[in-house]
Amino acid sequence: MEKEIEIIVPFYDLDPMHVVWHGNYVKYMERGRCALLADCSMTYENMEKHGYAFPVVTMRVKYVKPAMFGQKIIVRTVHVPDENFLIFKYEILDAATRSKLCVAETKQMAIDIKTHESCFQLPEPFLTTFGGTK
Amino acid sequence: MEKEIEIIVPFYDLDPMHVVWHGNYVKYMERGRCALLADCSMTYENMEKHGYAFPVVTMRVKYVKPAMFGQKIIVRTVHVPDENFLIFKYEILDAATRSKLCVAETKQMAIDIKTHESCFQLPEPFLTTFGGTK
Amino acid sequence: MEKEIEIIVPFYDLDPMHVVWHGNYVKYMERGRCALLADCSMTYENMEKHGYAFPVVTMRVKYVKPAMFGQKIIVRTVHVPDENFLIFKYEILDAATRSKLCVAETKQMAIDIKTHESCFQLPEPFLTTFGGTK
Amino acid sequence: MEKEIEIIVPFYDLDPMHVVWHGNYVKYMERGRCALLADCSMTYENMEKHGYAFPVVTMRVKYVKPAMFGQKIIVRTVHVPDENFLIFKYEILDAATRSKLCVAETKQMAIDIKTHESCFQLPEPFLTTFGGTK
Repeated sequence: MEKEIEIIVPFYDLDPMHVVWHGNYVKYMERGRCALLADCSMTYENMEKHGYAFPVVTMRVKYVKPAMFGQKIIVRTVHVPDENFLIFKYEILDAATRSKLCVAETKQMAIDIKTHESCFQLPEPFLTTFGGTK
Repeated sequence: MEKEIEIIVPFYDLDPMHVVWHGNYVKYMERGRCALLADCSMTYENMEKHGYAFPVVTMRVKYVKPAMFGQKIIVRTVHVPDENFLIFKYEILDAATRSKLCVAETKQMAIDIKTHESCFQLPEPFLTTFGGTK
Repeated sequence: MEKEIEIIVPFYDLDPMHVVWHGNYVKYMERGRCALLADCSMTYENMEKHGYAFPVVTMRVKYVKPAMFGQKIIVRTVHVPDENFLIFKYEILDAATRSKLCVAETKQMAIDIKTHESCFQLPEPFLTTFGGTK
Repeated sequence: MEKEIEIIVPFYDLDPMHVVWHGNYVKYMERGRCALLADCSMTYENMEKHGYAFPVVTMRVKYVKPAMFGQKIIVRTVHVPDENFLIFKYEILDAATRSKLCVAETKQMAIDIKTHESCFQLPEPFLTTFGGTK
């Protein structure tokens, strides 16, 4: 599963160096991930209805080239099948040239909303959707 | 009731003009308000326990002078007694000179969390605490 | 001059009440304003080339109904002709029903970037573009 | 070199799960880093005076336990001597119990502000301050 969304860099995301402040890419990644999850009917609301939340447990980001005000950028989110975690890889690209601005990865763990217990394997129906094809 | 808190302007709040982005003052105002509310045991959690939320219904901000990176600023929050709304006035000042950077006002309305109904008068115990002295 | 843009409410803009945190509407307003300004070739970069910045000097916001996660909203930005300030009015609407979520107004003043002096009248070419029809 | 700062978790940093949104820890890390840098007279302004900017090139974050509204947290920032990069490690701790909420690492590279060229070794005076002792 993968998904591309386009974002136009807003003014309020810039820092005094006239580039996107590095922490704001985390927002772009979340927008990409939520768009992919919506495509497979796994919005946060649906996850909650199944009784689980999926907090991010690790995040790695590599910054390649800065994004500028008004620039059209693509967030390409790719799901990585895994039985234990919800794993996504991200590429943030310039929309015109598709040159890489940023690459990243996040890992999310299922938490039972009632008991607050962590799940070391994805519970159903998440295992079927995200667990890969053995 | 009034309260002063000190904030050191963080880098991530700046915009490309090297000053605090105007929308970020809303965060400073909320920090001032929450500090004042905590002093009178009216944290958001306590409000929720009493069954009410207090969304902001109007906000006015006047920007006088920009705040810069690393600047020590004071948020002075003053409660304005009122029977219908939770009203606060704010002054954001340079800590060293107390010169004015920003003045603002917010109005919050009580909402019954269960019924989602708006309260056109402050419910108890908020009326006693915030309603003024007549 | 007016302009409508569509925004899908992102997760990271929500607060614990499951609605958009009130300060985040300021970002939506800026995106609407920048889209309108781009349409008349008055991006912030162009303003800077003419030697002026336009900090927001006053802002008023009225919150009518909360916006939710994933909701499609419209920011309708309308320029109000004025010789002294850059004035915009905003309506934030539900995209499906066009019911009002938020109305707002901002006023921006021209500042000479070199001298840091405020302009009590819009300088050219801004006066011609934004000053109205007399 | 190391530095501890205290932060009280503000309401606007929370997400609908009533915990700090994962992207906001990046702000806490920056506040810790800037406090440490100020202690050794290496604020961003001073870096700029020397002709260099230090964009973050990689960031890794591991989330251990969520931070809540009003919680007092400590950001412990430790400089890791290195000749090529400005490297910091972070621990975000509950202030009362010092239990770990989050650990992270960032790497920053020197960029010559005039030429926009990356420096594969720290330039002076940064090499002396941050390069370690051999």
